[in-house]
This record gives sequence, C-alpha cells and structure tokens, in this order.
Amino acid sequence: MKIKGFTSAAVKAAIREKDRLDLGLIYSEVPAVAAGVFTTNRVKAAPVILDMERLLQGRAQAILVNSGNANACAGKQGMEVAVAAGALAAKQLGIAEEMVQLASTGVIGLPLDIKCFERVMPELVKGLANDGFDDVARAIMTTDTVPKMSFRRLEIDGTEVSILGIAKGSGMIMPDMATMLCFVLTDAQIAFPELLAIVKAGVEQSFNRITVDGDTSTNDMVLALANGVAGNQWIDEDNVRGREIFEAAMSDIFKDLALKIVADGEGATKVVTIRITGARDEDGAMNAAQTIANSSLVKTAFFGEDANWGRIIAALGRSGCRFDPDRVSLFFDEIRMVENGVGLGPRAEEACSAILRKDSFTVTVDLNDGLETAEVYTCDLSLDYIRINADYRS
Amino acid sequence: MKIKGFTSAAVKAAIREKDRLDLGLIYSEVPAVAAGVFTTNRVKAAPVILDMERLLQGRAQAILVNSGNANACAGKQGMEVAVAAGALAAKQLGIAEEMVQLASTGVIGLPLDIKCFERVMPELVKGLANDGFDDVARAIMTTDTVPKMSFRRLEIDGTEVSILGIAKGSGMIMPDMATMLCFVLTDAQIAFPELLAIVKAGVEQSFNRITVDGDTSTNDMVLALANGVAGNQWIDEDNVRGREIFEAAMSDIFKDLALKIVADGEGATKVVTIRITGARDEDGAMNAAQTIANSSLVKTAFFGEDANWGRIIAALGRSGCRFDPDRVSLFFDEIRMVENGVGLGPRAEEACSAILRKDSFTVTVDLNDGLETAEVYTCDLSLDYIRINADYRS
Repeated sequence: MKIKGFTSAAVKAAIREKDRLDLGLIYSEVPAVAAGVFTTNRVKAAPVILDMERLLQGRAQAILVNSGNANACAGKQGMEVAVAAGALAAKQLGIAEEMVQLASTGVIGLPLDIKCFERVMPELVKGLANDGFDDVARAIMTTDTVPKMSFRRLEIDGTEVSILGIAKGSGMIMPDMATMLCFVLTDAQIAFPELLAIVKAGVEQSFNRITVDGDTSTNDMVLALANGVAGNQWIDEDNVRGREIFEAAMSDIFKDLALKIVADGEGATKVVTIRITGARDEDGAMNAAQTIANSSLVKTAFFGEDANWGRIIAALGRSGCRFDPDRVSLFFDEIRMVENGVGLGPRAEEACSAILRKDSFTVTVDLNDGLETAEVYTCDLSLDYIRINADYRS
Repeated sequence: MKIKGFTSAAVKAAIREKDRLDLGLIYSEVPAVAAGVFTTNRVKAAPVILDMERLLQGRAQAILVNSGNANACAGKQGMEVAVAAGALAAKQLGIAEEMVQLASTGVIGLPLDIKCFERVMPELVKGLANDGFDDVARAIMTTDTVPKMSFRRLEIDGTEVSILGIAKGSGMIMPDMATMLCFVLTDAQIAFPELLAIVKAGVEQSFNRITVDGDTSTNDMVLALANGVAGNQWIDEDNVRGREIFEAAMSDIFKDLALKIVADGEGATKVVTIRITGARDEDGAMNAAQTIANSSLVKTAFFGEDANWGRIIAALGRSGCRFDPDRVSLFFDEIRMVENGVGLGPRAEEACSAILRKDSFTVTVDLNDGLETAEVYTCDLSLDYIRINADYRS
C-alpha cells in the first residue's frame, strides 16, 4: 500500500513501555489539503485543541502521533509538550510548525515527557519511507489486538487515485488507551470544502454509528490529508462525477475501518448490526438503535447467545423513540421473533438461538409506524471487557 | 413489623419454578387511599396498564404480586390473565375487582398461566396474617439475593403511625427478573393529593437516583396504600406539621430501600455515590451525575479498585453538562485527586486507591462554576454482572 507523495515511519520512543512502537509520523512531500473531525467531548486533549486551531487554514503536511499517553487533563504543561513535539518534527522536516498535526492516545492525566520525542525525532524522520504505513498502524495500537488499515484505488477522469485509511480503537471510545483515531491519506486533488464535507458525512455514517461501550474519548479524531500528487482533475463543486466516485470510496474506507473497530471491541466476540425500520422520525430511529446498541443487558445477552428479545424491546421502550408497542416486529437476521409486540414462542426462539451463535448477525426492529430507518453497529459485552477494563492501568 | 389493618401472605404458585414463594398478597381490611408511580418505559406490562387505570379512583384494598413472569409483551392474553387473576383475588376477598392492584416481575414475553392463580388463591387468602410481610418480600425476589424491607414508627399529633416499605430490584431496572417493585403500606390517615405528592417527591429523590445498569423495566412500580386505621388527625393541606413528619419518614424509607437495591445490584461489590457540586444548572448536574454513574468504563474501574479519574472526567465531558474543564476538581471521599482539571499525581492517586478498596465511597466532582448540585447512587460493574445476565434465562 503506497500513496504518491506520502511517506511514514514509526519508532520506539519509550513513552509508556520500553520496547514497543509508540510514535508514528506521516509526511506529505507537499502541503496537503486537510480536514478533520474531532471529539465532541467537552474535555479535549491538548493535541485536539491544537489541531482544531491549526486546521482552520485547511492545510497540513505531517501528522505526529503517539500512543501510551493521551496528553489529556495535563493542563498548561500538556499544551506546551504538544507544541514542542510538533516543533521538533517541523524543524527536522524543514516545514512550518503550523503544518504539523498532533494526535495522542493512551492514559489520561499523566505528564508526557518531551524528552521521549527529542531522543527519537532524528531517527523517526530519517526512517520515513513510502511503505511505512503498517508500522504507523501498529504504533497507534493500545488495547487493539490487530492493526487496522483500509485501502482503495480508483480512477477519476482517467487518472489513478489512491486512498489509505489507518485507524485504531477498541474500547469505544475512551481515554485510557481506547481512543479512536483515524488518518486518511490520499493523493487526490480535492478542494477543501469538498474534502471536509466528505469527511463529515463519512464519519456520520461510520464512526458515529458504532459503539462498544457508549463512552467517548477526550482524544478522538479523524484527519484527512489530500496532497494532490496524483494530478487528477480537481474534485470541486463543478466535478460532480469525480466527487461521487471519490466520496463512495472514502465512505467505504470509513465504514470498513469502523467495522474493524467494532470487531476488535474490547473483549468482543460478536459484531451485531442493530437496524430500526418503519420509524416515524429519523432522530427517534437513531435514538432507538443507539439505546439498544448500548444497553448492557442487551449486550450481555448477545455474549450469552440468548435471543432475549424482551431486553431489546425494553431498551427500545426507554429510548425516547415514539412508537406503538402493539405494532413492533423483531427479527434476528431473517427470522421473525416478535409480531405485533408479542413473542412468537419457543420454536421461533430456538431458530433465533442458532443465529445468536454466529459471529455476526443483524437485529431488525420494525416499528411499522413510518418510513425512517437507522443502523448502528455494536458488539457484545463479555467477561473479557470487564477483565480488560478493571485491570487496565495496573 | 405489623401495620394496623394490613395482612399479607405468600404461596408457592409454580409460576416459573416449582418450589419457591412466587405469589404474594397484601390486603387492607378497609379501602385504602392509594397512589402510585409507574415505569416511564413506552412498553408497559399488562399489570402496569391495569393499575394505572384503576388508580384513577385513588383507592385500593389489595395488591396481588407475582415473580417468575413479567406478563409483559404478551398481548391481549396478558391483559386477560391480569384481569382474571385480580378477579380471583377480589372474589375470594369479597371486594370489588377494581380495588385490586396487580404487579409482576420476571421473564418478559412468556404466557402467564391463570391456572397457577386458580390453584392457590384459596390457600393464599386463607393465609393472610398480620405478620406475613417477610414472606411477601421473599416472594417478589428474582435475582435479588436478600429481601428488602424498611420500617418506621412515628407520631402524628400524638397518635402512633407506622409505615412499612417492601421492595425488590437488583439489575437496575429491567424485565427478565430485574424489575424494581416497591410497596409502601401505612395505617396513617392521609388525603390522596398529599399521598401522591409525597410518593412522587420521594421516588424522585430515591429510586430515580439509583442505577445499576441504566436500563429501565416494563414493570417498574411504586404503590402506596394508606388505610387510615391508626386514626391520626388527617394529613391534608391544613395539617402542615403532620405532613412534614410523615413525608420525612416516607422519604427515609424510599431512600433506605433504594440504597438496599444498589447494594444488591447484580454482581455489585461496591456502592458509590456520585456527587456533582458547583454546577451552573440543576439539569446539567443531574446529567453529569447520571452519565458518570452509568459509564461502563467508570463502573469497571470501580470494580478494579482503580482510582481512574480520567474516565470520570471523560464521562463528565460527554454528559452534555456545561462546565469549564480547567476549573474541575475531583475527590474520592475527602481526598483531592484533580485540581483545575489537572491530576495531582502519583501520591494523591495512592491515597485515593485506598478509598477505592472500601465497600462504599463518594466521588465528588466540583465544577466550580455555580451553585447547583446532584447526587446519584451506583454500583460497580463486575464479572458477576456479566455471568448473571449472560446466563440468566438458561
């Protein structure tokens, strides 16, 4: 997986543990159009605050990302270290400080030591190579068990363009090593307004539709850099067809990475799609899907491979979504378990139990009350989730 | 514990299991003033719908309650069984059908067999005794590990009055055997508007402030019956002092029972009070407290006895409560862990870890941004919670 004009590298900076890749650098040979989406958490880590400010210019040329320390809730010192680390990279790369984006994931509230960055920066920059992305994907892992990448090659007006996404995320989506980060690199020529709109819409349909435990992080971010080296006809408001093709590929990558995150959810043994159909309004449908997807009792039943539709209906009932309980149908994959709000009995439940034993399945709740739909991806809540998160910092 | 004019009994009705108390009856010799608060879940079990209708009259004389089957999501048949079971009790007691309140807790969506009620009703009514409340408290247990009762004796204008509360609840607060039920019996003479207002305010300050897993049930209810047999001066709008004394005692009972429910939360090893102070507005404070109290990551850290304040701050950040991250202080009991949004380091954390090892403690988050406060009671999220709820129906 190579992307024209981009190089990357990762090193062991001993930020929290001695012998693991924990610092990555992504570099574009030329200034890239850049857009980002950041955590809505009111508590934002220093790199998030810094990036948001710098991205107002719509340009960036490098991403410096560390794991092992979130650089969040660290006060003035945290911001100073973020700025200093970015400056080190900028100096070594010979670019302006403001062109460096920063990202951190790891334990919250611990001071991040600038010395870790000073020691390794020359080596890191020297290591930049056009095939280093796999190392970056590894360097940002925390409780993740696998690196997560997604790649698409496409043609825009006869010119080959590539898009590469790199992500991490496992406990959805929290400080303490469980933040969600995603970097998307492309050699496409695309105008800033189009890139930003595509990133925003893509995130809405992917990362904002997954949940592992309903928690959000102080450090979540999605950054997209488009360096234009492919030389395709500009994707802008006039290039409707080009935009369509590009957006479809980018959305694919977002969704692919989002599902990889759910599948790698802390302790997860199953990926479950929660689909609401026949809702009166879209917000209600989304609330219903999210409430079911986040219910500890529903998720624990998935882990127990128990077709416990009562818990799903009860979560639906408290979601705030308007519906008539006597019209609800519920399906596990294609098998109907509830009709007009009433369970269909032991035989249906037996058929559904077989579906629950699969690694992935869909729960469809049809409210029979309108035309709106919503879909959310979740995982089960297992003994290992508790083990991972009870012992995490020790 | 006896309450003038009230008798009760419980029997083994084989509703779900053969050899356990699963049907209880509470009876007042005279019609009682009655008020209730019911689940806000849009999906309501048949007995809830029936009770709400009957309570419009503000009077009741009996409560018939079963465990083992929630009689929820059972359609027309469910309502027919609820009505028929009430009628059986009414006939045997020689009172009007409409004077019987019904309550159910247990598995959702299974048909409830009227034959279970027919078989045992004569024995149940015959068994009514003024010291049978402990049996009723046992008959309504599901995943509860202990029966929950709370009793107060008080004096109103020189007359002795008693109040007895009986409750169940363990997984907060869900179908499948984890519904919260509470019955409060008193021999006080109290007018309907006063009783209803006191019940509503009491529930708001107690059961609505506890959480085990954030789920609510199709069957939750709090019922209060006041039969007036004590003969005290009527508690009404003119008897301000009498009302104060009565309300204080009743609130005490609600809070006592609520804390017993949290302490018996499924798999719980710790009871934790989440207190928000210095908030700009009350709703924000309550949102913040609830979000922290329901965060799986926070609750899992409590289980792990990890003073993981970063998770608490991050939950606060996504709660929707407005605050300035740089002004937040956080305490475990009296020990300060965070000041001005920044952690106070390893020594403070060590002191806090000792507090985390206790069976109960308080997390105080001071937003230093206003005068409003909120308090919520929660428990930890343990391996046993998963075990209980993954295996529950099998």
